[in-house]
Amino acid sequence: MLPRIKELLHTAPAEQTVEVQGWVRTCRDSGSLCFIEVTDGSCLAGLQVVAEPNLTNYESEVRRLSTGCAVRVCGRLTASPAKGQAVEVRAERLTVIGLADPEIYPLQKKRHSVEFLRSISHLRPRTNSFGAVARIRSELNFAIHRFFREQGFVQVHTPIITTSDCEGAGEMFTVTALTGKQLRQPEPFQQDFFGRRAGLTVSGQLQAEIFALSHGRVYTFGPTFRAENSNTARHLAEFWMLEPEMAFCDLAGDMAVAEALIKDLVAVVQANCADELELFERFVSKGLLQKLEAVQAQPFARMSYTEAVEALRTSGKQFEFPVQWGSDLQSEHERFLCEELAGRPLIVTDYPKQIKPFYMRLNDDDTTVAAMDILVPGIGELVGGSQREERLELLEGRMRAAGLDLEEYSWYLDLRRFGSVPHAGFGLGFERLVQFVTGISNIRDVIPFPRTPGSAPC
Amino acid sequence: MLPRIKELLHTAPAEQTVEVQGWVRTCRDSGSLCFIEVTDGSCLAGLQVVAEPNLTNYESEVRRLSTGCAVRVCGRLTASPAKGQAVEVRAERLTVIGLADPEIYPLQKKRHSVEFLRSISHLRPRTNSFGAVARIRSELNFAIHRFFREQGFVQVHTPIITTSDCEGAGEMFTVTALTGKQLRQPEPFQQDFFGRRAGLTVSGQLQAEIFALSHGRVYTFGPTFRAENSNTARHLAEFWMLEPEMAFCDLAGDMAVAEALIKDLVAVVQANCADELELFERFVSKGLLQKLEAVQAQPFARMSYTEAVEALRTSGKQFEFPVQWGSDLQSEHERFLCEELAGRPLIVTDYPKQIKPFYMRLNDDDTTVAAMDILVPGIGELVGGSQREERLELLEGRMRAAGLDLEEYSWYLDLRRFGSVPHAGFGLGFERLVQFVTGISNIRDVIPFPRTPGSAPC
Repeated sequence: MLPRIKELLHTAPAEQTVEVQGWVRTCRDSGSLCFIEVTDGSCLAGLQVVAEPNLTNYESEVRRLSTGCAVRVCGRLTASPAKGQAVEVRAERLTVIGLADPEIYPLQKKRHSVEFLRSISHLRPRTNSFGAVARIRSELNFAIHRFFREQGFVQVHTPIITTSDCEGAGEMFTVTALTGKQLRQPEPFQQDFFGRRAGLTVSGQLQAEIFALSHGRVYTFGPTFRAENSNTARHLAEFWMLEPEMAFCDLAGDMAVAEALIKDLVAVVQANCADELELFERFVSKGLLQKLEAVQAQPFARMSYTEAVEALRTSGKQFEFPVQWGSDLQSEHERFLCEELAGRPLIVTDYPKQIKPFYMRLNDDDTTVAAMDILVPGIGELVGGSQREERLELLEGRMRAAGLDLEEYSWYLDLRRFGSVPHAGFGLGFERLVQFVTGISNIRDVIPFPRTPGSAPC
Repeated sequence: MLPRIKELLHTAPAEQTVEVQGWVRTCRDSGSLCFIEVTDGSCLAGLQVVAEPNLTNYESEVRRLSTGCAVRVCGRLTASPAKGQAVEVRAERLTVIGLADPEIYPLQKKRHSVEFLRSISHLRPRTNSFGAVARIRSELNFAIHRFFREQGFVQVHTPIITTSDCEGAGEMFTVTALTGKQLRQPEPFQQDFFGRRAGLTVSGQLQAEIFALSHGRVYTFGPTFRAENSNTARHLAEFWMLEPEMAFCDLAGDMAVAEALIKDLVAVVQANCADELELFERFVSKGLLQKLEAVQAQPFARMSYTEAVEALRTSGKQFEFPVQWGSDLQSEHERFLCEELAGRPLIVTDYPKQIKPFYMRLNDDDTTVAAMDILVPGIGELVGGSQREERLELLEGRMRAAGLDLEEYSWYLDLRRFGSVPHAGFGLGFERLVQFVTGISNIRDVIPFPRTPGSAPC
């Protein structure tokens, strides 16, 4: 395979012959020469190709190159006299592989609005910023797998189609193999593929617990879904979630793993995607680099939910939503606590049991649960986790109180009947993480194919 | 965090005090001592704990331990006099964390049938063989990401919910947020979440092509779905698929990557899961180790579809299904070619265009396409790939012939309108790979949560 542009840009030039394949980012005709910037997606920077009139197709093709054309270039890798680049290629042969008619190709040299780019989601990865997002996602994806492997976790594929509803709330998409008339029968899902109503998972946690109790430390990283009709910059119908689950682990251990993970992932992006971060710092989010450094600088701040409520009440700030013990923290509250009060990531612990799901472990005070949320500047909640209720009778009580059918969850209760151990885990929204490290404000711009109300184009 | 049993088994014993947490696999009361085998899922082997009557809870708890109980043991790590293990732990304190009443705990020391274990999919990861499968899946998962990263690929999350049907055939599950009465309206999906009928992806390929044409070399690894009502040992409604896609790549390059990948993945399992492979060799599939060595020994065999048909016709074998040029190869044909004729993995290329999807590149003979399937012993097709049709007019022609609506696929055609380049890719069924390396015959036993007709229990 040919070397990529990323490699060539770091190769010492010695007039060696190289071959490059990629797409034209810009083509500038100086009159006596053409300067063609070629990219291949391997990095943010392009490679400058200098084409001289002695090329046989100089007039017929080279001078007519436009943004988006695919080319193959043979030439010599030489030191570049131009600023900002160490090397360039002096073309000896330039072959046009695929044209991109500038009259109709939607991507031109100018800056396009993110709204316009969302309307051409099949072409936007070719732009600098969406191309950079894709590389950062890929780096983070690998870093996640590496992090957990190094710590002895087993990766588990939890199911996408499920008949359990982790949160005990609605908002699940239904999955069906029925069509037309079949859907109009009474109780149609009894005749359906799975013999009952099945839906798209909202979380792999309950199933991950199965494997925590056989393999000790496990994680699942996969797509999750919400059929929530919210047309906002914060919601997607389909998004990726990372969910580790650890046996013999309490809330303190859970927080330690989550904090170490976030610091590790941010460090990977800082180390491997410096050019991309620079781009986002300049064009998307001033202060991004400093915000990321603050993640590493010191331990995350910590306070209990009760302390957080007290801090909000005595802050002297006016909030849109009232602050009262027993209500969930609103986005404005979370951002105040994290951005203004702590000035860095903040872990809030021990929430009232009535605002948290049934599976969270009841604290000795009988009113709060061993929950933790990690709030980060600019985003709010990045991680939500808890120690799980491992005591059978207490869990059954919470499930009854939540109106759940214990029969349906008998498999989940079995985990407490047989060899139950203290265990804990958390969920990290992958797109929120990408937003955090890029500073991109709309979640639709950090996932390759956003699924939102009314929109699933390809 | 405490060391795992995998680490302790490789620690030189020096009477050091260690702490272990895990589950009792077996407990044997010799009269004067108890021998307790403890596992924690980190490896196949257990750790032997020797408990003496001087433990304060020896009579009340230790002697009553049974399979599945969760325990914490403090003791000294010493050289073991017993055969087959280098170390053991002499218990100084043994705490029972969670019981598993032997009267009702379904997993006992005896061997259970795979059919029975399928009925308790939330407990089967605790058995030796299903525990081993989970570790092998995890190793393969990481090896896949590492392999592609080393070769400069960008990982892309292609969508699960989609309005495109890659294969141009049915068998897609429908995804809906409608309920009850809403489903009974005429044209219900116009009122649905996405404003049109949406389904679960059968392949991420078409969307991966978008990123191959921006980032050069990409892969997607995620769940895919078939609403096929097949109750066999070879079919799942939900399974994981790996799909690399490479720009500036032809069929030869495609085959080279696929062969290198398979060899690399098999080598990882041979190196990192030797105990697990030994287990499967002994109890599941005699000859497994030799079969895996044959993968590495020499280049994969190769023949064209036309040569394959000729070889089948002149083989003198009686087949259930007739062999004729223009029909798809049946499982019995694939297995004969691969197992009896080649005796190793076999790549079959250049299939008739009428039995392959519209996106495969037409060969110059105008009757075959640049397709390749990789067949492996015991499984049949493990990989299916092709060079993609990058020529706009030819692609449009094939799509019209297949009865597809070109408007629906305009985004896909844009990839040929703007900067089109030769590109190729393949799909590898992850569960088939796990079957291949473990020798497990039923696909339901190599995925944590099999989804099949009538069955999606948790």
